[in-house]
This record gives sequence, C-alpha cells and structure tokens, in this order.
Amino acid sequence: MEVVLPDGSIWHGLRTLFKDNMGYALRHLFAGAEGTLGIITAASFRLFPKPAGVVAMVAAVPSIDAACTLYARLRTVLGPELVACEMFTRPCLDAVVRHVPSARDPFAAPHPVYVLIEVASFEDDAHARSRGLGAMAALMADAIITDAVISENNAQFRALWGLREHISEAQGAGRPVIKHDIALPLSKIAEFSSKCEETLSWQFPQCRVENFGHLGDGNLHFNIVPCPLIPHEAFHELTGSVNMLVHDMVTSFSGSISAEHGLGVLRRDEAARYMPSAQLNLLKAIKTAIDPAGRMNPGKLLANQSGLS
Amino acid sequence: MEVVLPDGSIWHGLRTLFKDNMGYALRHLFAGAEGTLGIITAASFRLFPKPAGVVAMVAAVPSIDAACTLYARLRTVLGPELVACEMFTRPCLDAVVRHVPSARDPFAAPHPVYVLIEVASFEDDAHARSRGLGAMAALMADAIITDAVISENNAQFRALWGLREHISEAQGAGRPVIKHDIALPLSKIAEFSSKCEETLSWQFPQCRVENFGHLGDGNLHFNIVPCPLIPHEAFHELTGSVNMLVHDMVTSFSGSISAEHGLGVLRRDEAARYMPSAQLNLLKAIKTAIDPAGRMNPGKLLANQSGLS
Repeated sequence: MEVVLPDGSIWHGLRTLFKDNMGYALRHLFAGAEGTLGIITAASFRLFPKPAGVVAMVAAVPSIDAACTLYARLRTVLGPELVACEMFTRPCLDAVVRHVPSARDPFAAPHPVYVLIEVASFEDDAHARSRGLGAMAALMADAIITDAVISENNAQFRALWGLREHISEAQGAGRPVIKHDIALPLSKIAEFSSKCEETLSWQFPQCRVENFGHLGDGNLHFNIVPCPLIPHEAFHELTGSVNMLVHDMVTSFSGSISAEHGLGVLRRDEAARYMPSAQLNLLKAIKTAIDPAGRMNPGKLLANQSGLS
Repeated sequence: MEVVLPDGSIWHGLRTLFKDNMGYALRHLFAGAEGTLGIITAASFRLFPKPAGVVAMVAAVPSIDAACTLYARLRTVLGPELVACEMFTRPCLDAVVRHVPSARDPFAAPHPVYVLIEVASFEDDAHARSRGLGAMAALMADAIITDAVISENNAQFRALWGLREHISEAQGAGRPVIKHDIALPLSKIAEFSSKCEETLSWQFPQCRVENFGHLGDGNLHFNIVPCPLIPHEAFHELTGSVNMLVHDMVTSFSGSISAEHGLGVLRRDEAARYMPSAQLNLLKAIKTAIDPAGRMNPGKLLANQSGLS
C-alpha cells in the first residue's frame, strides 16, 4: 500500500512481497481502518489464475443446521474446489422472485433454506460438474439435502447466482429494512439464528427475519423487515431496540456486530460498548499515536477523543 | 489471540471469526511483533481439511529463471492443487548427499537447479499423480524442465522432501554459514540471484553462494559458505560486508531483508537503515503508544527508544 499519513508524510509500502517481516504488519493496520489512520492512495494486489471450469448449484435444505452440515461436508470433500457457499432463507427467495422479473424459483416446492455453491476446477467445466454432482449425491443419500439443481451453461450459472445477488435490492423494495452485518463462529450459526428469530418473534411480533449471507465466512445479513400492514414509521422506531436485541445476542455467542461493513458512525458507539475495555484502549492508543490531532476521518470507527475522555 | 499487554491488562481476542471488522486488525499487529507489544498467551487457529491424496515431484531445470517459469506455469495449470514449490541449487543438493547417509541424488546427471513440488488432490493419490505428471509432461515438451521424478509411495514422498528439508543442517555441517532470509518480487528472483552471485564472486572470491528457498513465497535463503581451504576466522570477518552487499542489492530490487525470521537484534539496525523514515516513525509511534515504558522484549525489532533519539 501507499498511504498518506496525518503529518503529510507518505508510507511507500507498495512492494509486492508475499512474506515481509521487517517490523509490524502496517498494511493490515491501514486496511479496514476506514481512513482514520491515513489515506490509502495506492495498493498492490496479488492475482490468482482463473479456474478452467466452474459450476453453480443450489441445494434445498430443511434447516440452517442442515446448511451448516452441508458446508462442513463440502469443505472436506471438495477442499479448495469449493469457492463459494452462500445461504438464503425462503422469505429472501420469495422477495427476489416477486421483485425480479427474470428470477424463477428453481424448485417445484418451497423449502425453508437454500444454499448456493460454486465449484471451480483447474481441469474443465465437466470436471467441476462431476465433482459437484458427486458431492451432492452423497449429501442427498445421507438426507442432508432435500433437492438440488446444477447449472448446465453460463446463462444458468448467472441465473442461480442472481437469486442470491438480488436479495438486498429485492428485500428493500418498497419497505424499510433493519440491517445487520454479523459474524459468528460456524458452529453457532444455526443455534443463534433460531434463538434470535424466536426471541424477536416474541418481543417484536410486528417484525419478520429475512436471514441470508456468506455462510462460508460465518457472515450473516440477519435482516429485519416489517410484517404486512405494519406502518413503516412504527417499524422505524423499533430500530434501536431491535439492534440491541440482535447485537446483544451476537455478542453472547462470541460473534461480531461488523463482519465486513466496518463501524463508521452507525455502529461506532455500539462497538465501543461491546468491545472489551483493553481492546478499546488499544484502538484509542493506536489512533492517538498515528493521528494525534484527530485529522483523519474524524468521528468514524472511534468517537472523537474529546468525546471519549 | 489472547495477549497480555504491557500494562498488565489482557486482550481477549480468541473468538473464532473469519470476518471481523470491529476496529483495527489487532491480531495482525501482535503476530510478528516479536513480543515487543505484548505476550501472546493463546491463539485460535482455523483448520483446513486434509487432502485425500498427495504426490511430491522434483524437477531438474537449467536455471533459476526456468524455475520461476516452472512455478508460474504450475500455478496456472494446477491452481490450488499446487501446495508447495521449493527451490534448491546444485551445491545444496551436494551438501545434503554428502551429509545425510540416506539421501540420494534422484537424477543420473547433475543439474544447476532443482524444484520440489507437492501436488494435493481431494480425490485420491492417483488423481494427484495424474495432475502432476500431466503438468510436467507439458513443461518438458516446452523445454522448461530437463528431467523430473515423481513419488510412487509415501517413502519416496518423504525421501524427496528430505532433500529439501536437510539443506540447513547439511549446509552448516563443519563450516560457518552467512545466512540471509530475503524476499523478492517473483519477477525479480532470477535477475537478483545471478547479479548478486556475480558481484559476490568478484568482491569476495573466498565465498560461495548456496541458494535455496521457498520459491512460491518469493523467499530465498541466499546463504554464503567459505570456499574450500579458506580459514573460518577470515570468513567470519566478512559477515558485515557480505550482509551489506546482499541486503543493499535486495533493497534495490524492492525486496525485504527479513522474509520470515523477523528482525530480533541481528537485523534490527540494518532494517532501520533500509526502511523509509515514514515507516520507521510509524513503528516507533505504535511501540511507544502500546508499550510506553519499553517493558516488552526491549531492544528487539526496534532499538530502545533512548538509543534512537
């Protein structure tokens, strides 16, 4: 990376080395710092060769627990040939089918949970397909999945991915969404999801969970939409209470309230509340050391130091 | 990670999340800090499933340039099935064969450079072998490699790996070694190696290069041994001058003088000299912020602050 620092000097860290142990890992410090330590003005990327063949599959499963079992099994059987594993629940698919004219439910019957899988091969498409089908057949024989479809060409590959990629847009079409970007240990995703949805249904019966996310990364977008006929203003007013219920439970399951979106201003004060004090003190010490005048993206990630002291 | 901090507080960062963006990436800061920011008392690791089959190959190539071409081609053809790519030059193999009773040169004729490759498959050993052989046949047809051997069983797999793993021990048997742990951009490994060896042969004719390393990581152990009949004391006295020649040239090729071993005390002052001042200032600011009294592993990685000011 090349980073312009708060004092106007420039860190020239663009050299393209895979291993470098000359001091602290500065590039990891600046990446994800949300501009609060300096401005990243250039970056070097390592490129990876493109696989020779890919295939997409959607598996229908009876529960999030089954989806997690499916993922664990695929990792073992496919290793690095498994390049994506995304999950979405039935209400998410409903929203996409309703909102996107070209989207079609790939199954005749509805299912509670779907998993989108991409398999890559450095041999060819046929090898990717054969590996994917083999893994799915074993999972169906063991009753982990109920049904599955596989892409036979690029148009079908795009169509299956489209079911996942259009969720955010479809979910927010014509209604408000209380969004969450949470990470959990893989072993706790199923238990968290069912416990949190049940608690929400008791405390906020006017809300409904539309849960989807990057299952392979342990990252859920555990989003909340209003039930039909609930006025949007009344729903909006629940935001703080719903966030607190969800994020309290995430924390009790050793999870993170920001998996990939960062803290910004929206999650800044919540994060400070959930973080152990030793961790918050470290963040403040690093911020003060590198940007003592608080010039860089003030108020993001950490409250302004005067406000914190 | 769990880290005991200089003020006696503990950072509890053991949660097992793949994605977590609640503030700065602390675990990357403590990893590789050589204990200068705190003491790591526990760590969580992500485990990966074991491949179903593996095979080791050693390819003989005419030059380091050919070894780099070989690596680039294998990455493209094998993708993540290529799990190791190590290089060693002829003098390293000579040392191993001389020093290790069970070690045997796998080829009838000597070659300038060897590359050890491991191929992994999530199908079985036969698939790993077929993928490895296919890649090697294409490389031989294109005259990139001169000869190659492949392991047919676990004993041969271990024997081929042993040729690489015994180099350090064999190299240092009965003679001093001036060691380097350098990283270079992959595209500059061949040019650096020949230019540095040539310059050394002019300036220090009593020295000989024994070059080997983790080619896939761009990490060379560009080590120097005395020519026969050179007294060890006279060789020892060259250490500082040889280090400076090698590390000056590494820096001019945008490389690092510490790829994986860290700085400690041995490379600390050299590193401070080669580092851009903005980078050195960042390291000092982070050290001072987290360990203001200089309690943690004093004098390692960075000179004591009093000595620096």
